[in-house]
Amino acid sequence: MLVTPGNLLAQVNTPEDLRKLSKDQLPQFCDELRQYIIDTVSINGGHFGASLGVVELTAALHYVYNTPDDKLIWDVGHQAYGHKIITGRRDKFYTNRIYGGLSGFPKISESKYDAFGVGHSSTSISAALGMAVGSLHNGDKNAQHIAVIGDGAMTAGLAFEGMNHAGSIQDANLLIILNDNCMSIDPNVGALREYLTDITTSKSYNKVKDEVWNLLGKMSTFGKSAREIVSKIETSLKGAVTGNSNFFEALNLRYFGPIDGHDIDHLVHVMEDLKNIPGPKILHCLTKKGKGYEPAEKDQTKWHAPGLFDKLTGEIKKSNSPIPQPPKYQIVFGKSIVELAEKDKKIVGVTPAMPSGSSLNIMMEAMPDRAFDVAIAEQHAVTFSAGMATKGLTVFCNIYSTFMQRAYDQVIHDVCLQKLPVIFCLDRAGFAGADGPTHHGAYDIAFMRCIPNMIVSAPMNEEELRNLMYTATLDKIQNGTDAFTIRYPRGNGVMVDWQKPFSEIEIGKGRKIKDGEDVAVLTIGHVGNYAVEATKELEKEGLDVAHYDLRFVKPLDEEMLHAVFQNFNKVITVEDGCLQGGMGSAVLEFMAENGYSAQVKRLGIPDRLVEHGEQLELQRECGFDAEGIADAVREMVSAKMLA
Amino acid sequence: MLVTPGNLLAQVNTPEDLRKLSKDQLPQFCDELRQYIIDTVSINGGHFGASLGVVELTAALHYVYNTPDDKLIWDVGHQAYGHKIITGRRDKFYTNRIYGGLSGFPKISESKYDAFGVGHSSTSISAALGMAVGSLHNGDKNAQHIAVIGDGAMTAGLAFEGMNHAGSIQDANLLIILNDNCMSIDPNVGALREYLTDITTSKSYNKVKDEVWNLLGKMSTFGKSAREIVSKIETSLKGAVTGNSNFFEALNLRYFGPIDGHDIDHLVHVMEDLKNIPGPKILHCLTKKGKGYEPAEKDQTKWHAPGLFDKLTGEIKKSNSPIPQPPKYQIVFGKSIVELAEKDKKIVGVTPAMPSGSSLNIMMEAMPDRAFDVAIAEQHAVTFSAGMATKGLTVFCNIYSTFMQRAYDQVIHDVCLQKLPVIFCLDRAGFAGADGPTHHGAYDIAFMRCIPNMIVSAPMNEEELRNLMYTATLDKIQNGTDAFTIRYPRGNGVMVDWQKPFSEIEIGKGRKIKDGEDVAVLTIGHVGNYAVEATKELEKEGLDVAHYDLRFVKPLDEEMLHAVFQNFNKVITVEDGCLQGGMGSAVLEFMAENGYSAQVKRLGIPDRLVEHGEQLELQRECGFDAEGIADAVREMVSAKMLA
Repeated sequence: MLVTPGNLLAQVNTPEDLRKLSKDQLPQFCDELRQYIIDTVSINGGHFGASLGVVELTAALHYVYNTPDDKLIWDVGHQAYGHKIITGRRDKFYTNRIYGGLSGFPKISESKYDAFGVGHSSTSISAALGMAVGSLHNGDKNAQHIAVIGDGAMTAGLAFEGMNHAGSIQDANLLIILNDNCMSIDPNVGALREYLTDITTSKSYNKVKDEVWNLLGKMSTFGKSAREIVSKIETSLKGAVTGNSNFFEALNLRYFGPIDGHDIDHLVHVMEDLKNIPGPKILHCLTKKGKGYEPAEKDQTKWHAPGLFDKLTGEIKKSNSPIPQPPKYQIVFGKSIVELAEKDKKIVGVTPAMPSGSSLNIMMEAMPDRAFDVAIAEQHAVTFSAGMATKGLTVFCNIYSTFMQRAYDQVIHDVCLQKLPVIFCLDRAGFAGADGPTHHGAYDIAFMRCIPNMIVSAPMNEEELRNLMYTATLDKIQNGTDAFTIRYPRGNGVMVDWQKPFSEIEIGKGRKIKDGEDVAVLTIGHVGNYAVEATKELEKEGLDVAHYDLRFVKPLDEEMLHAVFQNFNKVITVEDGCLQGGMGSAVLEFMAENGYSAQVKRLGIPDRLVEHGEQLELQRECGFDAEGIADAVREMVSAKMLA
Repeated sequence: MLVTPGNLLAQVNTPEDLRKLSKDQLPQFCDELRQYIIDTVSINGGHFGASLGVVELTAALHYVYNTPDDKLIWDVGHQAYGHKIITGRRDKFYTNRIYGGLSGFPKISESKYDAFGVGHSSTSISAALGMAVGSLHNGDKNAQHIAVIGDGAMTAGLAFEGMNHAGSIQDANLLIILNDNCMSIDPNVGALREYLTDITTSKSYNKVKDEVWNLLGKMSTFGKSAREIVSKIETSLKGAVTGNSNFFEALNLRYFGPIDGHDIDHLVHVMEDLKNIPGPKILHCLTKKGKGYEPAEKDQTKWHAPGLFDKLTGEIKKSNSPIPQPPKYQIVFGKSIVELAEKDKKIVGVTPAMPSGSSLNIMMEAMPDRAFDVAIAEQHAVTFSAGMATKGLTVFCNIYSTFMQRAYDQVIHDVCLQKLPVIFCLDRAGFAGADGPTHHGAYDIAFMRCIPNMIVSAPMNEEELRNLMYTATLDKIQNGTDAFTIRYPRGNGVMVDWQKPFSEIEIGKGRKIKDGEDVAVLTIGHVGNYAVEATKELEKEGLDVAHYDLRFVKPLDEEMLHAVFQNFNKVITVEDGCLQGGMGSAVLEFMAENGYSAQVKRLGIPDRLVEHGEQLELQRECGFDAEGIADAVREMVSAKMLA
């Protein structure tokens, strides 16, 4: 739904238009931009708080810097709605995150103003540094490269690696803007967070800050050379004031700030000055997530991505179905780990900055000493889990499938090679939905099943998730040599009445869902429910299709597979994961090893980028929703009839 | 070959024995331990400089701490030879890194004194923190957990993530020992390195240091409570001295040092004090790699792992074959990238701290502005490469296969999803050899080929490597949408006369090496040479075996595969990579998609840990050396005859 922009915003179709405004007009422009975001998100949904927090930063950056020639990279990209609206996408903005519409994140292929595609956190410094070095290589010494990164994203190792390198390339035109709002999706944690608070509240830092800006002010006024002034600033920074050799300076980055990230006049002034200061530098801006919309300022986690809401009352709209709905898999995880942990003192939980997303927050509230939010730090999350496992703890390490890509080495090197029985719950496995390709959990079956000492499983419903979790905590597993992966999708399961007593599942045992004759359908995980739908539909057409839920990709249920290939020569495999090396390939490997031949059709995520949209839309596009499965059966059977 | 230990060392079979020595005896003990390492490595080979640098640290740690109950984690583990010798493995130490012998790294399954298996860098802080939290969970408040980490390993993001978390758990008994020797394998780089040098040479820091140790001295003397003293120390540290709010304190770690890591008396004294100071803390020790062996002190990179040498003259022994030998693939890479870059200004090279290992040092010397050592920072290496690629540069990002596991997300998220044509040279693909399972490049075919927009190739020899590198730089690739992986093994190729003119290889085109009738052998990469041997051997037995070199796992040469499966019903695939999801599985997927049935035997790395040994020993063990391939053919053919 299209929203009417304010007077100034209506004139701004590109950053060039923005730069035609006078500085006096910028506060009003920011108000209109903020209102436009509120209006649009309230009726179309999407991320919210982060973009409200950077309205002034966004306007100042495009006002001062010569985008798109100067490169602007929004770390993560949740906060880039204002950027999208300013850079020629205002009229399409209502399609944000919708199938076929704009991406929720900056994306190279969508706009020349999106200098680098983002989604996962903490990539911006490395990418901007690469661009800065590229500009030097190309002989372009004036190009500017700006990474806007939150204090949450600063906790990830990649950001540190980028800063360590940046500090050693003193001719790179790199500006890191630390967008310090104390929040990721949940409140930030860790020592760096405390340190930033110390900086911000320290009187000596405020003194330094004043000195710096006074000097910068003089520079603008008297036109002195930037280098001369910079040297004075550095003397001032490194001088007599307590606490001035700060974290960022230790990494050889010139540090400026902290300043108020909502003061557009000051931001523009500061950026105009910084533009003339060469080399890698960091500007520390204090902002408020949800700024300008009171309910969002008050509960920042809830308003990170609130869904639709009434912008006047601040009431978040809920679908009030009169019929009880199945729970989200996330809730099943969160409640079940607490149930298990209440009975088993060895159980602990770990999340890298996703307490509310994963529902580990339920355990963090119930037993705060036994549930750890380790910040945006997937690598550490896994190695830390391995360390706890050596001490006999039963560790549930919950990481989104897509973020597990960032801890892959730790899974291999620190867990599986050491035969430590860490339990990995891979949330948002399969299509992530509206977040799109950066967030799809497409590859985990392929990249986890090739690791020795690893069990890979996926539940078809809530009860199965509970029972897999329970099974993973049993002594036979925890005293064994295998790590245990349980992958499940984002969103709702299928069972309203799910909270049943735990029962053990035999490792490597699948289950027959339905007998049949014509074709055998093998599924893994939630998509098994689509096969149930499909076989019912096909039954009406007189097709008798067998359906097996593998439950485990590794180890495979060889007994069941022998039975399948002894009885069927037409087999369809279905998975919400990549076709290269996935479950279907594991089945082909079994066939080759055992000398079976059969016609096998593998359904799953194809070898190309699949964009954003609702999960079912994407599954339909890729042909493994219920209809896709039914079609595959029909095609296979008709080929049989022809043959 | 067993070496005779000195008098004191001969008495020390366990750390308990060490703790029976008087403090006065420790210097002599250290001399003997150092000599034992020199004696053993000179005749048996292995890593050298790192262990010499921590002789005193090793002795002090086992003397002061109650290992194995107190947990000692050696980051990377190159430096743990002294540790191994002290902890009951002296008499087996001559088997170090040999097939069936001791591992070159600490390893949980080898000794109770090896608290955590290592090999890849920067895991120690996270693991030790996990153990410290595990001890708290288990109600054990006195257990000590010590991570010994080099300044090189400190540059990796994982170390930073671990410190950020550690600083927020103030009741964790964690001691980080920063073993600061300015070196990884090559000299360390980056801003943190400069910072550590600043600390070390700063007068104010030395003043702080003195104050700290004076206070600690008083503590020991007067028996004051540790907490009381710590608070004074902190006041001192955070007081009036310039530069005292240091990098580590910003992360809420108590910082002590820098101290001389070769002064055993002082080390023991300091550690006895630190044992009584609770919470996460860091001790900064200055050491010298190669300490006590002059040639190794002088050329630390060369003596990181020198091979066999004459301990008296310091002459490194070389196999002086009268016949010219084929070069290492690494040299081919290093020389070829320079050749290519001389003609194409867009080409740049990146290595994460492996200039000499990868041979990118050749380019770093020839064109220092175009070859980047980014420190131990694989994640950053990839995203930095992606940033440069957006600026039109042709980037060769050279990362060992095993270390690419640490940048997996960046390959997917920052390169392939953005369709950036970065060229990945995966060095040491397949079995790494003596470094063992932590370093085997076993999984890359499986984890790279499942990513969209990715070409995956492997050269069978030097000429092929050159031509694949050349092909990857061509406009048709660099203006396209695919990243380009070239994997090759550690060590020598097969061509003495390798430096031929570059020629293009068609993407996705394999080559027929040999016609045949009975069986078709499909290979990828260097193992193709084993198949050549095997087919020659089999020819003598009257078996006519066809051999195809796929060259590309992705895209597959479908034309060639159609020809294979139309003409053969017995096929063997061979790869130096994991069988789950590897090249053989890609071939099975092709068969399923095209309705072929044939007997297929896949040879490669099985789904279990394969330990260390020479590459050929391990390939033989796994049945894909020349003999293994020949056996597989014989078995297949005899089965045919029976059928």
